[in-house]
Amino acid sequence: MAQVAIIGVGQTPVGEHWDTSLRALAGDAIQAALADAGLRSVDALIVGNAYAPTISSQSQLGALIADYAGLTGIEALTVEAGDASGGAALRAGYLAVASGEVETALVVGVEKSTDMIGTARTRARSVSLDADYEAVHGATLAAGAALLMRRYMFEYGLELSAFEGFSINAHANGKNNANAMFRNQIKPGAFARAPMIADPVTLFDGAPDADGAAAVVLTRLERALDLVPQPVRIAASAAATDTLALHERADLLMLQAVAASTGKAYAQANTSPANIDLFELHDAFTILCALSLESAGFASRGEGWRLAAEGHINPQGRIPISTFGGLKSRGNPVGAAGVYQAVEAVLQLRGAAGANQIENARTAMIQSLGGLGSTAFTHILTIG
Amino acid sequence: MAQVAIIGVGQTPVGEHWDTSLRALAGDAIQAALADAGLRSVDALIVGNAYAPTISSQSQLGALIADYAGLTGIEALTVEAGDASGGAALRAGYLAVASGEVETALVVGVEKSTDMIGTARTRARSVSLDADYEAVHGATLAAGAALLMRRYMFEYGLELSAFEGFSINAHANGKNNANAMFRNQIKPGAFARAPMIADPVTLFDGAPDADGAAAVVLTRLERALDLVPQPVRIAASAAATDTLALHERADLLMLQAVAASTGKAYAQANTSPANIDLFELHDAFTILCALSLESAGFASRGEGWRLAAEGHINPQGRIPISTFGGLKSRGNPVGAAGVYQAVEAVLQLRGAAGANQIENARTAMIQSLGGLGSTAFTHILTIG
Repeated sequence: MAQVAIIGVGQTPVGEHWDTSLRALAGDAIQAALADAGLRSVDALIVGNAYAPTISSQSQLGALIADYAGLTGIEALTVEAGDASGGAALRAGYLAVASGEVETALVVGVEKSTDMIGTARTRARSVSLDADYEAVHGATLAAGAALLMRRYMFEYGLELSAFEGFSINAHANGKNNANAMFRNQIKPGAFARAPMIADPVTLFDGAPDADGAAAVVLTRLERALDLVPQPVRIAASAAATDTLALHERADLLMLQAVAASTGKAYAQANTSPANIDLFELHDAFTILCALSLESAGFASRGEGWRLAAEGHINPQGRIPISTFGGLKSRGNPVGAAGVYQAVEAVLQLRGAAGANQIENARTAMIQSLGGLGSTAFTHILTIG
Repeated sequence: MAQVAIIGVGQTPVGEHWDTSLRALAGDAIQAALADAGLRSVDALIVGNAYAPTISSQSQLGALIADYAGLTGIEALTVEAGDASGGAALRAGYLAVASGEVETALVVGVEKSTDMIGTARTRARSVSLDADYEAVHGATLAAGAALLMRRYMFEYGLELSAFEGFSINAHANGKNNANAMFRNQIKPGAFARAPMIADPVTLFDGAPDADGAAAVVLTRLERALDLVPQPVRIAASAAATDTLALHERADLLMLQAVAASTGKAYAQANTSPANIDLFELHDAFTILCALSLESAGFASRGEGWRLAAEGHINPQGRIPISTFGGLKSRGNPVGAAGVYQAVEAVLQLRGAAGANQIENARTAMIQSLGGLGSTAFTHILTIG
């Protein structure tokens, strides 16, 4: 199997782009990634998107975006796995290039959340829950996260304040990211006074829905070395699933899809948590940070929150997370989020992360989750 | 690159399954395909689906269906390319296996059209048109097909009756397919009296939206030979795109995505139209049959309709199409249609097509279209 590398990255600012269409956002990220790779075209386009059919009334994004980006005619399709759509698209692009049949693939994640607002958007987003057993009763992603968080607090005897370190770190990092949606900082104590969304999930627990697009260009590693000075190797690409409905899980506080996909990824890259220099995880809710760190082997069960409380997730810490602000501060452009993680990890590995540069970053892990851990796509990226 | 084979096929009857859920339909097709392959599980699940988010209020089908089918935990994702989603899923599964990283992949196409009825469904289906320039004005797939058909009739001086051979052949073949939705025959002359849907497209021109699921199991050819007596090789897998909006096309009557993807497929399989024993094309509308036959090289421009009028598309003809009834008579379970084509082609190549068996079928081409030719996925299957 051919080894695969990322040779170009591009992104748009994350936020509310009321005056920019879905296709234009994607086109901007694509042009930036192609320019970064020094290419004018590619052989295949893989689009990661979660909610264009329900929020933007648009499917067939593959052909639509290929045409808009001046790539009319090339092979294209869309990959969907709920909020993990970006990670899923990266995996599909990786397999296409690894097969040897597609020489150069462009993976673009794009979402236009502002095409719909308020409860209509909440409903449109709820299609990633189990429609017949959860969403039909009015469940939302935040409500599901609240169930997980309440259970975690109960099991381990914790207060809300146990989670504030995740949001404080995300905003502290996002402050230095020009593409971040919210660059304000969260002061210690403010977390506890945030408006309640779905008890105990507050406004400062959940990441904001956003518009945005990010893109990466993939090719075989052997070819990458001739094209760009700093290709980033995809050392592992792995995926696993769990139930959609929370009530079907034997153990609510172990994200089985995270555990399985990171286990496969560590094996592929012949590495372990101790060798991961940064971990861009799916911080759509603070509880997912704690559970992801535990399920991926960075903390014992019930101890994930301590990594935040004790400063280990900061850029200078043992396992830096959300180094560009994460979904929480950079913003959550849903189906694009997984590709933003890839772009940010590449910048870290290139040593181009600016004020938030992780020193001597050689190995980065990125992880995209669908629903509340129903799907997990995990990639390990290395340089040099 | 590893060669890829189909080692198991499964399908549900196509029709209106009011009492069966989306996941149950997919589960039935999966169990049939696994049984046919003699396997109990696979390494990855790829779901082809077009409209579950807008029609069934359900995304994340990968994890959902993996769990329902007893494959909880395996890698899974959904592939979408409008009505070509089934063909796109087959391509994604093919690339996954060809990469050598996924040993066995299950590709399932599923759609539940009856979760929504009437104009609501028409609107939900219109997301595969260009939302900003077509659907926003009320355009539908049938209206777009009408524009193509009117232009074709004008350019070549034809009457409606020029197209009746396509529907007559489809229903004559569907009569013998126990899984077909409409097994009635269309008598010559009845076609002209059919109710008008979008002038000049009549009820007998367009394929009926339907519920259904079909599945195929893929593995490497070298391994396939140890597992089943009659593996079918995927000799070509190719895709191409065109604009979504019809008004952006320089030439309305040449389906560029069809021409490009079949061209690539012929080259990969080292074959030509003369060597194709049957062609399961995307007969969502009779005009697409004529245009597909021309764009794929089976007829000169303006002459595709003659293949139907002169009997060349019948099972005993020069280039049999819709051999199990096609989308028109078997029914169009949208995102599953491309996988039904694969199942039917495999049955033909195995010599298991019953009354509609194509004599000495060794090479079958299948083609899945998104929108009105905006995306085309073309596969060539061979045996022995």
